[in-house]
Amino acid sequence: MMIKRSEVEKYQKKTVEFLSQAGIVLTEEESRNIEIAEFGLGEVETQGLQLVTYINTDRYCAKELVLFARQTCPEHLHPPVNGEPGKMETFRCRWGKVWLYVEGEATEKIQAVLPRGSEEYYTVFHEIELNPGKQYTIPPNTRHWFQAGDEGAIVSEFSSTSRDEYDIFTDPRIERIPKIIEDTNS
Amino acid sequence: MMIKRSEVEKYQKKTVEFLSQAGIVLTEEESRNIEIAEFGLGEVETQGLQLVTYINTDRYCAKELVLFARQTCPEHLHPPVNGEPGKMETFRCRWGKVWLYVEGEATEKIQAVLPRGSEEYYTVFHEIELNPGKQYTIPPNTRHWFQAGDEGAIVSEFSSTSRDEYDIFTDPRIERIPKIIEDTNS
Repeated sequence: MMIKRSEVEKYQKKTVEFLSQAGIVLTEEESRNIEIAEFGLGEVETQGLQLVTYINTDRYCAKELVLFARQTCPEHLHPPVNGEPGKMETFRCRWGKVWLYVEGEATEKIQAVLPRGSEEYYTVFHEIELNPGKQYTIPPNTRHWFQAGDEGAIVSEFSSTSRDEYDIFTDPRIERIPKIIEDTNS
Repeated sequence: MMIKRSEVEKYQKKTVEFLSQAGIVLTEEESRNIEIAEFGLGEVETQGLQLVTYINTDRYCAKELVLFARQTCPEHLHPPVNGEPGKMETFRCRWGKVWLYVEGEATEKIQAVLPRGSEEYYTVFHEIELNPGKQYTIPPNTRHWFQAGDEGAIVSEFSSTSRDEYDIFTDPRIERIPKIIEDTNS
């Protein structure tokens, strides 16, 4: 599964507009480099995520995560890498609403809707609802997934160094690093 | 020099309003814990800074810095601590304008105005102007100071672990950790 260049650009534009209405400004270069994570599943509007990486050093990382309405980031964890503990991350909701699910006692009736056809790859159901100003820190090596509410969400992620290529997803079909194919004239 | 509880509360309220008009929401608890850094100089509106610490772990830190019109954070650096390199920090302007000064070739005509009576404690003059969406990363152990423009500024700070008590200020009169005195009935 892959994503077309024209689709990437469409979602990049939508992400810039989304951030803009919340008062978050990007440079031209940042706008061009917005990452559209489609996880190799070919259904980016259901299971997908838009990311702006502000800074990623060997000591810390900061990103803006954008989720459109009911978009879901699939379940994954950040394992130890080269003897360092896995990535630790703080999610701070800036706009909209997001439901975050982590390991722990399952919430009886969760508010997110599991992506159809992928239900078996969601296994942790301890729900944390994040509204603007609310934040939660996910320990290293802990399975988690999240879904935006009906209006979408903007989440600031503060974390240790990001090494996305080591992320372990519950769904074995997922490829974290996107393959973008250039549009052909047809 | 110290700051009165009633003054702290006045600046905390002003900070909440400042963030609010830029669409940045705090919890009640965060609002109560806004740090008013007055540096022991007794002139917080000239040399001072308001800080919201979202998270500070042994791996990373994230804060929102608020500067009122022309307010200045005095020159300092972050030295190595316990064998670790000093704090490294990325300043991202969210709202308003801030001039950041770091080591390096001095800018011929800087836009900031040196706080009167403290001129001798400002020694680095390489100017970086940050407007919304623009950011700059300050290496560890590097002297820097910053001043907001005429409307003030909101700056997101992404960094390695924050250990403010080790900061080294150029001005020997400065005490980083504030002493707050309770108001007495009089």
